[in-house]
Amino acid sequence: MSHSTDPFAPLPSIESHLDRISRTPGAPPALSSAIRYALLQGGKRLRPILAWHAAVACGSSGERSLDTGAAVELVHAFSLVHDDLPAIDNDDLRRGKPTLHKHAGESMAILAGDAMLSGAFELLASSSLSINPAIGLALLRELSAATTAMIHGQVWDTLGGVDGSLSPIDQLRTIHSHKTGALIRASCRMGAIVALGHADEKHPTLAAITAYADAIGLMFQVVDDLIDVEQPAEHVGKKTGKDADAGKLTYPSVFGLDGTRSEISRLLKASQIALQPLGANARSLGALAEYLARRTR
Amino acid sequence: MSHSTDPFAPLPSIESHLDRISRTPGAPPALSSAIRYALLQGGKRLRPILAWHAAVACGSSGERSLDTGAAVELVHAFSLVHDDLPAIDNDDLRRGKPTLHKHAGESMAILAGDAMLSGAFELLASSSLSINPAIGLALLRELSAATTAMIHGQVWDTLGGVDGSLSPIDQLRTIHSHKTGALIRASCRMGAIVALGHADEKHPTLAAITAYADAIGLMFQVVDDLIDVEQPAEHVGKKTGKDADAGKLTYPSVFGLDGTRSEISRLLKASQIALQPLGANARSLGALAEYLARRTR
Repeated sequence: MSHSTDPFAPLPSIESHLDRISRTPGAPPALSSAIRYALLQGGKRLRPILAWHAAVACGSSGERSLDTGAAVELVHAFSLVHDDLPAIDNDDLRRGKPTLHKHAGESMAILAGDAMLSGAFELLASSSLSINPAIGLALLRELSAATTAMIHGQVWDTLGGVDGSLSPIDQLRTIHSHKTGALIRASCRMGAIVALGHADEKHPTLAAITAYADAIGLMFQVVDDLIDVEQPAEHVGKKTGKDADAGKLTYPSVFGLDGTRSEISRLLKASQIALQPLGANARSLGALAEYLARRTR
Repeated sequence: MSHSTDPFAPLPSIESHLDRISRTPGAPPALSSAIRYALLQGGKRLRPILAWHAAVACGSSGERSLDTGAAVELVHAFSLVHDDLPAIDNDDLRRGKPTLHKHAGESMAILAGDAMLSGAFELLASSSLSINPAIGLALLRELSAATTAMIHGQVWDTLGGVDGSLSPIDQLRTIHSHKTGALIRASCRMGAIVALGHADEKHPTLAAITAYADAIGLMFQVVDDLIDVEQPAEHVGKKTGKDADAGKLTYPSVFGLDGTRSEISRLLKASQIALQPLGANARSLGALAEYLARRTR
């Protein structure tokens, strides 16, 4: 892979932006520390990376996507902190380190999650992107709808399913398209909206980015399920095999291992077809899809 | 009090709007039930009432404030649900009924709170008010900043203070101006912004509404502290005397009972002075301030 298509090349810019936006002088220092503990743990930064490359694929600079990517990452970090809580997934480890409620206590984890969610919307509403109010509002509409969808997915996951009348495969797709797909979709679309300067659903570029996002959003979760089955815990930095232990629906449990692998190939192909109209600008988005299909953690 | 200045006359319109916006066909039914349980428990609806009368005081119809008031009420309801959780205030009763985590379980209470917060921003971003994107964005900026301030106040309250170098009175004012004042301020300002069609800080009407809101926001909490000392629990519908038991800072503990009562008179007077430039349109806001100064629960 040549340097020009290394999809993680923007990581240093993204990390320093996250560092910058999480310094909030007026906030209680204990809250800021908790938020920075949860937000600045490294990780792939998939969502800001997607926003960056979607902006590039639509003809803008990646830098213009930074506030957008940071807002999405705040929502993602909020969801991890709340999902890890004892009353929900009761996870003690996240990326090999104690989860926030283990580190700072349960009340601080609840409040820090709340503040990250509120802070994501505050960041967008006060961003220089919002000098164009129609853009600011379109971004807020995308992010708030995706956040609500994500919470719906988490509720269905917690309850163990969507609706008894759906087949297991449809239940799985519905949970995933909400729980992880919606925010991945919003990352791509928000990067595109920043670059295009509008959110016209009939615009072919926005439609192409949306089709790409839908394919990789689902693929991301299918790969996650596969890793959960195939990898020992010490490689992943969190408990694995846990979904199967809990009797949760997963792709391998519904499709089998081979079926899961062909589903991944199918979705990778769909993402590549979606990008074709965008030409060379979309090279990094294409490389990112290939990385996501092959990742092992 | 004549009917024309009964500040709670808009309650039926507000209740039916809250009922309408909390019907969300695509959401998991268990989540919708939890949200409606937390949101539709009655109560004074102070924040939507303030938004309504602020809009009227600025020359608009109260109806135009309904989405704004509902968004603020969703944020308020979210904060009550999360603050009641076992890890934070551990309250079993709210308005005489089991709190949401007692009724629907702790995980559902966490997720329903999250969904109410996200839903508040989604409501504003998709409101017909946002046909004017500058207005929609100004409302989102107000609400997100107030929500973050409210969470800061809750963190300080949970930690037992702001900063050892502040006097007890300054600590109390800082906690209250964040924990309850910020959202009351936003309610008034958002109603005014809807009516005025802009958020120009130099506009004397917006400045008058803001001064009114600051006075009654603090007064509301001072009265709350007084009720906590003076009223037995069965009149209030939740545990009282609890703040004093927990050794928390309260107005009566810092100012004494007489000092607390004169602070209330001072703030009522300040709210009335602030309204003078608005004339007869602000009659209901004035009546509301008097009600808030005298309320006993």
